Amino acid sequence: MKSLTEHLVLEVPTRRAFLDITERVSDAVERSGVQEGLVLVNAMHITASVFINDHESGLHHDYEVWLERLAPHAPTSQYRHNDTGEDNADAHLKRQVMGREVVVAITRGQLDFGPWERIFYGEFDGRRPKRVLIKVIGE
Amino acid sequence: MKSLTEHLVLEVPTRRAFLDITERVSDAVERSGVQEGLVLVNAMHITASVFINDHESGLHHDYEVWLERLAPHAPTSQYRHNDTGEDNADAHLKRQVMGREVVVAITRGQLDFGPWERIFYGEFDGRRPKRVLIKVIGE
Amino acid sequence: MKSLTEHLVLEVPTRRAFLDITERVSDAVERSGVQEGLVLVNAMHITASVFINDHESGLHHDYEVWLERLAPHAPTSQYRHNDTGEDNADAHLKRQVMGREVVVAITRGQLDFGPWERIFYGEFDGRRPKRVLIKVIGE
Repeated sequence: MKSLTEHLVLEVPTRRAFLDITERVSDAVERSGVQEGLVLVNAMHITASVFINDHESGLHHDYEVWLERLAPHAPTSQYRHNDTGEDNADAHLKRQVMGREVVVAITRGQLDFGPWERIFYGEFDGRRPKRVLIKVIGE
Repeated sequence: MKSLTEHLVLEVPTRRAFLDITERVSDAVERSGVQEGLVLVNAMHITASVFINDHESGLHHDYEVWLERLAPHAPTSQYRHNDTGEDNADAHLKRQVMGREVVVAITRGQLDFGPWERIFYGEFDGRRPKRVLIKVIGE
Repeated sequence: MKSLTEHLVLEVPTRRAFLDITERVSDAVERSGVQEGLVLVNAMHITASVFINDHESGLHHDYEVWLERLAPHAPTSQYRHNDTGEDNADAHLKRQVMGREVVVAITRGQLDFGPWERIFYGEFDGRRPKRVLIKVIGE
């Protein structure tokens, strides 16, 4: 069995953003030399997501509006978590809707993807460096 | 390490539906010959889900009503994604709630399931052929 | 390839609760002897979740309030699933928001975690024994 572990560092200048990290995952898979296996990609921070969906800016706007409706940032006093001095309780909720991780099949050395699948990092409490883990296993 | 890759093609005649694909996954696990390992099952399309829950028609009705409340289809003009000519922005949102994929343990050659666990394909923008990926790894 | 399979039994005396199971997963990973691999942790019941987030009681209160707003328990008659004699339809919905499972990387024999990541069992229909599966694969 082969394995490879890489950590991406991402720093978003705004509170929220979606970044396409597909090529970085694809490059790691290539470096691993794995032909048949799985790759796990996960946010290592609990106010961020890794998810798979469309690379389309209108949709990303829709996600932003929708998540803000499901789990509003303000008023920050509505959340007990924010009594700790944080203002990011909403980010912990939004991240549960979008998910922590994806697991993707590797077939013949490539991400085994449908036509529109792209991997995104979803930041909900940015303006500081955060890490994403890429773990490849297979042979 | 052994591995097996299969793709299911599913075509739902309606916009939305839930299909039980447990037996098809179970058959693929058997064909793989893997005794101890993992199986990944994921939608290859970004307006569909694979998830595990109950095979009970009342619950599926409840999911339908609930998802429509969380992410309504109409009016389609409420979503910027639909400015591209699509009318399926809501399907991209619903899929995030229900999830893209499941990973299931294989123990002694079988899906290691609790008493009520069943694997479903959740379609939110049907009426065209779509694919589900089954990837088994283990030994 | 090495593998290890363990089942935790959890019995929560209330309808809903969040239990930190990180140490139990970490102990299983150590027992497996796997240095590089993956561990899957999933609820084996369809009204419960396994998820990764913060060990902070204010946040858990916020999750409770938020999930009750997204998928209210009462009135139980609003759900067709409850026509079967159950009163737990809301638990099947809440579990979809929080997720069934997590997959965590094992690197140098340890859970490869960010600074605040902790694994939780989320119970939404307790007062009976339920199981969580831990499956380790790697080498």
